[in-house]
Amino acid sequence: MELKRLGSQTVRLICPPAIEGYASVVGKKEGEGPLRASFDYINEDTTFGESSWEKAEMHMQKDALIRASAKAKIPLDDIQYILAGDLVNQCIITSFGLRDFGRPFFGIYGACSTMAQGLSLAAMLIDGGFAENAAALTSSHFCSAERQFRLPLEYGGQRPPTAQWTATASGCVILRAEGEGPYVTHVTTGRIVDMGVKDANNMGAAMAPAAHDTIKAFLSDTGTKPSDYDMIVTGDLGFVGRDLLHELFARDGVKLSNLEDCGALIYDRESQDVHAGASGCGCSAAVLCGHLLNNMRAGRIKKLVFAGTGALLSPVSTQQSESIPSICHAVCIECR
Amino acid sequence: MELKRLGSQTVRLICPPAIEGYASVVGKKEGEGPLRASFDYINEDTTFGESSWEKAEMHMQKDALIRASAKAKIPLDDIQYILAGDLVNQCIITSFGLRDFGRPFFGIYGACSTMAQGLSLAAMLIDGGFAENAAALTSSHFCSAERQFRLPLEYGGQRPPTAQWTATASGCVILRAEGEGPYVTHVTTGRIVDMGVKDANNMGAAMAPAAHDTIKAFLSDTGTKPSDYDMIVTGDLGFVGRDLLHELFARDGVKLSNLEDCGALIYDRESQDVHAGASGCGCSAAVLCGHLLNNMRAGRIKKLVFAGTGALLSPVSTQQSESIPSICHAVCIECR
Repeated sequence: MELKRLGSQTVRLICPPAIEGYASVVGKKEGEGPLRASFDYINEDTTFGESSWEKAEMHMQKDALIRASAKAKIPLDDIQYILAGDLVNQCIITSFGLRDFGRPFFGIYGACSTMAQGLSLAAMLIDGGFAENAAALTSSHFCSAERQFRLPLEYGGQRPPTAQWTATASGCVILRAEGEGPYVTHVTTGRIVDMGVKDANNMGAAMAPAAHDTIKAFLSDTGTKPSDYDMIVTGDLGFVGRDLLHELFARDGVKLSNLEDCGALIYDRESQDVHAGASGCGCSAAVLCGHLLNNMRAGRIKKLVFAGTGALLSPVSTQQSESIPSICHAVCIECR
Repeated sequence: MELKRLGSQTVRLICPPAIEGYASVVGKKEGEGPLRASFDYINEDTTFGESSWEKAEMHMQKDALIRASAKAKIPLDDIQYILAGDLVNQCIITSFGLRDFGRPFFGIYGACSTMAQGLSLAAMLIDGGFAENAAALTSSHFCSAERQFRLPLEYGGQRPPTAQWTATASGCVILRAEGEGPYVTHVTTGRIVDMGVKDANNMGAAMAPAAHDTIKAFLSDTGTKPSDYDMIVTGDLGFVGRDLLHELFARDGVKLSNLEDCGALIYDRESQDVHAGASGCGCSAAVLCGHLLNNMRAGRIKKLVFAGTGALLSPVSTQQSESIPSICHAVCIECR
């Protein structure tokens, strides 16, 4: 027990589970961005051949799971737990998307931190001896998220410069008790942080304090400093939130020179007009399950802190003049 | 590893975590029902003194956590994980309700199976050596659920006889690595089951096959029979779903003579007009954190299978003519 808990938010995995397979499936716009070569599949048709945006997103999530399972060489029927969630009301993308697979399932909700949360729980279930393998899965779709959180697409609402663009993307990681790695070595579980930001078009500002809180806890609990890692990657603060996170750490006298943000990586800032960057559960999931893990497999990143950030709001909370509680879950992923 | 996994859906907890504290907080109608003496607090004002139904529900969830923490004699600041969720879009009840507590938090979504899911994960986190204690928490509120899933209350919509009444209730369990018990000894994780039921006013029928699937897996994985338990309790199939579950087991040649359902227990069928019984995350949570655990502490129930059932639909999926995928998570709770 003593060995596993480090500080009040972090656990060390005694037998770090291996990332045995991972896959990313994205839409057309994401496939035109700078990370295009890293995705497993780019669908040029935003509907994915389905009759609603929600069904398109379900299709994408299923596809990511099937591809990750094949790459992990673990048949779908042998997957012992699936931990998954999404942004749509009552997480229907996940429950409908996964209903044909018949695997033990835990629904999770962490907004854009869902992949980090799923990885955290999957890693602990395996290291705790409850499973040989587990999948963490999530998705988002620009069109399902717009009508859920904002306005129907047909309305043509204007987006302010601080708004982030929900990525049409899905990512799936399959962890296994043993394997070639990279490995999940530490899990830092976030606390809900609410600094009073009320602008639902500026989620980066709402989430930056949560990222600061969790990354600070991770560094303190593990007794390490930012330069001990090749990269600390948040997902998805976007440009506004990333700058704020730099500022929050600067106040602590800490320079995050190796900070990247999934929401700043997936689109080209100049040529793809997305204002403050990307967001959505699928953004950090697809950047992890493509660009980041590919670079780890290739030996270019050896120690990564993956810090998923989620804005835990809904249109109802915004209408009721509430501020935006946020959370950040971090996992440390290392090559041996 | 071998020792922990029993079959494909069940794990046995090697050091069964103890239920150290629990509390239930309910509204006026629930306080007028047959279980009135078992609840920790009954609020006669359905608004809980707040300005919206959502805020009323947040208030109730906070209150349940504070009371359970006091009863467990574990200060709120010492709780190592909170696993919680609710029915409202994007689980805002939970994220807003818990934002002041500053504890490591995992958001979960299992509709009315949320308490069983939270207990499952909390028990595994403790038995896996990641925490000394953890809280599982959920809630539902009739008025927030009606406008979320159905129609504004002011519309005065008619309810068909198969409809269930969302309980205004919250329950919280605090597990600890060691204690007086009762103890969580087994966890059976559900699979998503969808038998094609499309009537959102008949969720009992949609959920009964999921309850059948999980309870059958639990009995098979543990090599036990229904009569080995003092009670098998589902939550919340209501009267329609409970009868269907009896029928599904009868087809297998199994008689569930000790089956109860939280949705059939919380209201008086004759005097409180709720049609097919109760539902809502808070129903099974408050029945567990009152009636059931009180009876276990008093030695009247020694072995209990608590099987939470959730209908994983949303109004959007209903509008898109989808059927209702359901899930059931079971935990076995035993006195030593």
